[in-house]
Amino acid sequence: MVSSVGIVSAQRAQFDAPLQFKSGAVLPSYELVYETYGKLNADQSNAILICHALSGHHHVAGYYADAPKNIGWWDNMVGPGKPIDTDKFFVVGLNNLGGCHGSTGPISINPDTGKPYGSSFPVITVEDWVESQARLADRLGIQQFAAVIGGSLGGMQALQWSLAYPERVRHVLAIASAPRLTAQNIAFNDVARNAILTDPDFHGGDYYVHGVVPTRGLRLARMLGHITYLSDDAMADKFGRELRAEQFNYGFEVEFEIESYLRYQGDKFAAYFDANTYLLMTKALDYFDPAHACDGDLNKAFAAARADYLVVSFTTDWRFSPERSREIVRPLLHNRRNVSYAEITSTHGHDSFLMPHPHYFDVMQAYLDNIHRENAA
Amino acid sequence: MVSSVGIVSAQRAQFDAPLQFKSGAVLPSYELVYETYGKLNADQSNAILICHALSGHHHVAGYYADAPKNIGWWDNMVGPGKPIDTDKFFVVGLNNLGGCHGSTGPISINPDTGKPYGSSFPVITVEDWVESQARLADRLGIQQFAAVIGGSLGGMQALQWSLAYPERVRHVLAIASAPRLTAQNIAFNDVARNAILTDPDFHGGDYYVHGVVPTRGLRLARMLGHITYLSDDAMADKFGRELRAEQFNYGFEVEFEIESYLRYQGDKFAAYFDANTYLLMTKALDYFDPAHACDGDLNKAFAAARADYLVVSFTTDWRFSPERSREIVRPLLHNRRNVSYAEITSTHGHDSFLMPHPHYFDVMQAYLDNIHRENAA
Repeated sequence: MVSSVGIVSAQRAQFDAPLQFKSGAVLPSYELVYETYGKLNADQSNAILICHALSGHHHVAGYYADAPKNIGWWDNMVGPGKPIDTDKFFVVGLNNLGGCHGSTGPISINPDTGKPYGSSFPVITVEDWVESQARLADRLGIQQFAAVIGGSLGGMQALQWSLAYPERVRHVLAIASAPRLTAQNIAFNDVARNAILTDPDFHGGDYYVHGVVPTRGLRLARMLGHITYLSDDAMADKFGRELRAEQFNYGFEVEFEIESYLRYQGDKFAAYFDANTYLLMTKALDYFDPAHACDGDLNKAFAAARADYLVVSFTTDWRFSPERSREIVRPLLHNRRNVSYAEITSTHGHDSFLMPHPHYFDVMQAYLDNIHRENAA
Repeated sequence: MVSSVGIVSAQRAQFDAPLQFKSGAVLPSYELVYETYGKLNADQSNAILICHALSGHHHVAGYYADAPKNIGWWDNMVGPGKPIDTDKFFVVGLNNLGGCHGSTGPISINPDTGKPYGSSFPVITVEDWVESQARLADRLGIQQFAAVIGGSLGGMQALQWSLAYPERVRHVLAIASAPRLTAQNIAFNDVARNAILTDPDFHGGDYYVHGVVPTRGLRLARMLGHITYLSDDAMADKFGRELRAEQFNYGFEVEFEIESYLRYQGDKFAAYFDANTYLLMTKALDYFDPAHACDGDLNKAFAAARADYLVVSFTTDWRFSPERSREIVRPLLHNRRNVSYAEITSTHGHDSFLMPHPHYFDVMQAYLDNIHRENAA
């Protein structure tokens, strides 16, 4: 019986030990907001960590008592009887440090100044996130995760877990991800960042104290992002050259349906997401490269890995194409890890990782059922 | 012997008959700036028109006496002994109406008001351009072009010539082009336009009278454009994850080489190109669809065609992929036109059409030599 985890509530954890970032910056204290679903078993062997991507957060599944329509972003994947089955697993989702959904980030008040961190919030990396997540695991009494799971940027965190804490994660599920960005990936991020950085309302990142928000830049960044989330074919199928009106209007207002979609997505996002968080997330993407310290050699980078892996890609994903996933698989095989790789035929591009595609869900369910059986054995 | 056409100079043609645009707008008079290379033969049978793409202009080949480094944008293709051989052909290049290189456009002074046209310059279409180009052909005494040639948006003009004036063009060479944009193509254009339209210095298109230029928006538009001109592989080969400095700087300044390249290209372009012209060019791209009046049926749209065609695409071009070129070929074959189609293996993406690729140049040269022999016969 497949159902929802039902009513959930966010929890908070305060950390007062200073966290040193990879950049050298130190955050004296911070708070993480998280949610959990299911029950941690007696030997703490059934915990799963869900790492979010660029615009995700801790509200992974279920809904809030006072906001029943606010359903978690991966509710189709996480719940009783679903692939990440909360009858079997204890699932943890958190908002990453630097985020804008409740964990300490640029919009938070810096206790030292009484003002928002803004531009003074340190540039954060995937490695720093994993460090902060490990402390949350300690707090929750989780010595070892049965699995760390993430799509896109979330997949990078899952990979990093298995490199930074090989003894603390048994399985990594990296979906629609990459071992490191290509020049084209970085280029798209750079255009998005420049849209924000050059918005006159950005004020060097300290727009909060000016009472404004760099809406224009954030809107452009999101519009551009959406192009890269969808496949060319999916866009053609969904929008084609459809017009909003009967005729061309020969002006610069919304004319084609695709324009209407992009502007709507841009406006919606700019109304709630924090521009500084957007900048931080894209830089974390750019920086992630486990082979950076090994002269670019991914085989060496993954030598520390001890986990088993499920790597999933989608045929029409051109932001993180199947070839990027194969770049994860190859060094893992080189290091004789157990790797399952599934390339799912899907028309939805990068967005596929959030869609309830039967083949994709079957692969996830089968892999996670095996983990559960392994636990029970 | 391959050489340059040498010193060239731009010429101007004034047209005082009103031009009615497809939108219904009327331009009472206008000026076109153009260049010609080679000699028109006695029976006027050796004329070639070169149509430019988004950022091109009339200065196709050669250089100026007072600016020897200002070499035409297609100088590798056009000249004595080159594929478009000026010893054999009389070649005409012009700056399109609405442009910012000398032909009447948004930066021109509207004689009725004494101020720049700005936002009042009509939205122009590929059809309008062909109409204005036909008048230039009349002025030059060219009844029929041996060939109309263009890459990208220029290819659309070449196609439109053969539909609007089937009796006035014997050959069409459409390179790295498309019969109409996809939703993804329009989406990229819309993000670029929104960058300009939402720049506070845009002032609804009348920025000239405010003494400012929407540099931020134009810069973003160009950065984004460059991503789509290059292939993922070409970017990876040229830039990879190379850093400007030894170490990550953990900030938002230029860090990766690809960022440096994009920002340089953006800054350079924003310093000379007109934002209103950019908007007009992208709308002309979006609107072009010969099948718009035939319920989307390209077979019907090309029924009027009488020319012979060379269609060229490049394997790594993802802005106008080979599939887009095949969408030109299919309706032409359906209408029993003579069509040659070459899919060139090239790593340079959409930019390939401007590169001196041997296979590409051989194809062009062979096709144009045949035209020349046909002329002589």
